[in-house]
Amino acid sequence: MRLDFKGRSFISLNDMDKEELLYLMEKSAEVKAGKHKGFLKEKTVATLFFEPSTRTRLSFETAVLQQGGNVFGFSSSASSSVQKGESLTDTIKTITGYCDAIVMRHKIEGAARRASQAATVPVINAGDGANQHPTQTFLDIFTMMEKKGSLDGKTIGLMGDLKYGRTTHSLLIALSFFKVKLVFISPKELKMPEHYTDFLKTKKIDFEERDLLDQTAASLDFLYCTRIQKERFFDPMEYERVKGSYILDRESISLLGDSTYIMHPLPRVDEISEDVDDDQRAIYFEQAHNGVPVRQALLGLVLGTIK
Amino acid sequence: MRLDFKGRSFISLNDMDKEELLYLMEKSAEVKAGKHKGFLKEKTVATLFFEPSTRTRLSFETAVLQQGGNVFGFSSSASSSVQKGESLTDTIKTITGYCDAIVMRHKIEGAARRASQAATVPVINAGDGANQHPTQTFLDIFTMMEKKGSLDGKTIGLMGDLKYGRTTHSLLIALSFFKVKLVFISPKELKMPEHYTDFLKTKKIDFEERDLLDQTAASLDFLYCTRIQKERFFDPMEYERVKGSYILDRESISLLGDSTYIMHPLPRVDEISEDVDDDQRAIYFEQAHNGVPVRQALLGLVLGTIK
Amino acid sequence: MRLDFKGRSFISLNDMDKEELLYLMEKSAEVKAGKHKGFLKEKTVATLFFEPSTRTRLSFETAVLQQGGNVFGFSSSASSSVQKGESLTDTIKTITGYCDAIVMRHKIEGAARRASQAATVPVINAGDGANQHPTQTFLDIFTMMEKKGSLDGKTIGLMGDLKYGRTTHSLLIALSFFKVKLVFISPKELKMPEHYTDFLKTKKIDFEERDLLDQTAASLDFLYCTRIQKERFFDPMEYERVKGSYILDRESISLLGDSTYIMHPLPRVDEISEDVDDDQRAIYFEQAHNGVPVRQALLGLVLGTIK
Repeated sequence: MRLDFKGRSFISLNDMDKEELLYLMEKSAEVKAGKHKGFLKEKTVATLFFEPSTRTRLSFETAVLQQGGNVFGFSSSASSSVQKGESLTDTIKTITGYCDAIVMRHKIEGAARRASQAATVPVINAGDGANQHPTQTFLDIFTMMEKKGSLDGKTIGLMGDLKYGRTTHSLLIALSFFKVKLVFISPKELKMPEHYTDFLKTKKIDFEERDLLDQTAASLDFLYCTRIQKERFFDPMEYERVKGSYILDRESISLLGDSTYIMHPLPRVDEISEDVDDDQRAIYFEQAHNGVPVRQALLGLVLGTIK
Repeated sequence: MRLDFKGRSFISLNDMDKEELLYLMEKSAEVKAGKHKGFLKEKTVATLFFEPSTRTRLSFETAVLQQGGNVFGFSSSASSSVQKGESLTDTIKTITGYCDAIVMRHKIEGAARRASQAATVPVINAGDGANQHPTQTFLDIFTMMEKKGSLDGKTIGLMGDLKYGRTTHSLLIALSFFKVKLVFISPKELKMPEHYTDFLKTKKIDFEERDLLDQTAASLDFLYCTRIQKERFFDPMEYERVKGSYILDRESISLLGDSTYIMHPLPRVDEISEDVDDDQRAIYFEQAHNGVPVRQALLGLVLGTIK
Repeated sequence: MRLDFKGRSFISLNDMDKEELLYLMEKSAEVKAGKHKGFLKEKTVATLFFEPSTRTRLSFETAVLQQGGNVFGFSSSASSSVQKGESLTDTIKTITGYCDAIVMRHKIEGAARRASQAATVPVINAGDGANQHPTQTFLDIFTMMEKKGSLDGKTIGLMGDLKYGRTTHSLLIALSFFKVKLVFISPKELKMPEHYTDFLKTKKIDFEERDLLDQTAASLDFLYCTRIQKERFFDPMEYERVKGSYILDRESISLLGDSTYIMHPLPRVDEISEDVDDDQRAIYFEQAHNGVPVRQALLGLVLGTIK
């Protein structure tokens, strides 16, 4: 059993087993319920955003502040020594001496891992390029469990860009801990990569692949949407042809079941129409708000201030 | 009576009546006198500056911090998700879940109003384009009342760009609550717009318009200066011709009365000469410093932590 | 005796005498040992970085936060009113009303001095162009004294760009308070300027100048390295010829003594090879970390909250 989170970095979903994920979810629920208070008091967290991200940065910062902790850092590498040619490792070796934990986002895959090797304090990966963004997955899973309890036996649809979308890949790994059924809905250009579907086969996770959102969507417990970016298509005409099929609006949500929750990692552009926001099943803002207790719980665990 | 500020957004001077303004001024004076302390403890305020503004942002941030609160946000949209094409409404719907109040500046008129409709926490408008900047007006009125008590019977000169200057328009609305006399001093290209002078007529506020600062300035209680920007003139020669007439320096302030206080919203460029700063009547820095207690009082009222 | 730091600005090493430096070092050691805690509580410090500097800014910010204080400011002039043409003096006259102390970096020499004249609170210079950066020197001296006690009788090598390097000039002034021996190691294009060597002569400080790191390095107590920038050379070929001679790597450090500590103000680019980092004598990250207690002590002294 490796339930001791204290001192650990969180870089990738692959560093974690099911028991640990469930433990983190349990602690997150306790934090959200107000069972732990002020547990980051006298702790200082550096938020190093070499690449900008309002949502994630602000969520981490408010998470720390609301538990009584201190936060400092930068919101883009434009205002950092990186400009003077300093290596990432040197930046981290310096800042590790200024704080109790580091939260970082970087555009290069593997940057967070390298940072965690240079740091003497825990490093939380807040996104490294197209690679990993584990706390996004934590809050996704938390939101699902909060809505429907155990994920065993649930059917989850992932829709949109399943080829390049970092979020859906992380989420798939976490979901594979459970006895779920997955439905992949994407244009064929943007299908879930084979090494992920192979992975699901070895884990004996049931999945199917579809071109379109159709009547079978009524049986979904969750529909997790992601954006389809024009730049991903070789042929722009192809993009124009398919894009409408993956947009949720008042009409297309009629395909969903009464208790099919609609999720999205945000920011969205036009893949979910604003008139869907008021639907009871649309929970993407609630999902975003869950980032606060989940990140608080994670920080409390790695700093050893919640048990 | 609408003296319950709790939960309310402050977007425009037009949302407010005289009684409310006086109540806010009273509370601001109490805060400045140290009567309320630490009243923002455990409160978290987001400062969302989609458009940069050091003075206003730092004034709000120190206001919150000095009352024990937490503050987080961004100082320009360059480091926000706005870059990814996210709508203002989505940004607000997310951040509203991270904080107890939102302070925002945006370059688009009406943005703050739209934000207040999307938010579930109070929104304070810290400037939306050429439109409104209510807390500037609050600190202007506070400074005037601090110097001379009630504004009834006072004569206030507004000088400079009265056509485009957002500050003077907001101030005019607030001053219209009192039995004041107004004197507008501007080049004719930059006169107070007619809908504002019509408004004053319906409110039966006495005003006169002048081309130049002259001997009549001796009777002013306050002279509120604003900058004249070259870009506002069709004919650059005309700008060169008139600009000197609206610059305050050692010589021109001899036209003012012994108790004519000189105010300015800052930042100034060259419309007030630095050698005026030491004059007893120059109170523009004191005015800026009053932004702290006034903003603290406003936040305390909308958060319900001062009564 | 001028040991009362309360209310004083720190702009230049020249404002200080030996007794004061030693007093600051003593207080820094006490702070590092945990003897003073929470002494910046209810204090608010503005960090005004008109020019970006991650390391220095973050070090100051964490210093304040970890002692319970508040911090606010900006990390580049891009997000400040400077863009609107406001003078430095006006910015300072405003912000001085928002805080208990100002920490500032500016690209113009003398800016910090001017700011300290406009401010009513203490100003700490965190670097003004090529001029002064006193807290860097404080942490350098602190690190030396922490490693070897009194500096009297010690031999210190300064290597690299001694002509333009602000850090070595400040350090030289501080070292001149002690009975040290100095060794300057640089290409002849980048020698220590004559007015500094003249200054050493009047202070009767022993020094010698060398072209290269050689066997005599074994007798050094400290080797303080700085970067050689290509732009400093008229002839790029000359840069290529000499640069290798001032790079520390596994091989060249064999010239150093067993207790010759290697220091560097950071950030480094390639003047110290990363494979030197694990050497016991490499203390540049430790040195950077000492910035926190030293800056805390300085702020506590000027704010009168440690005695």
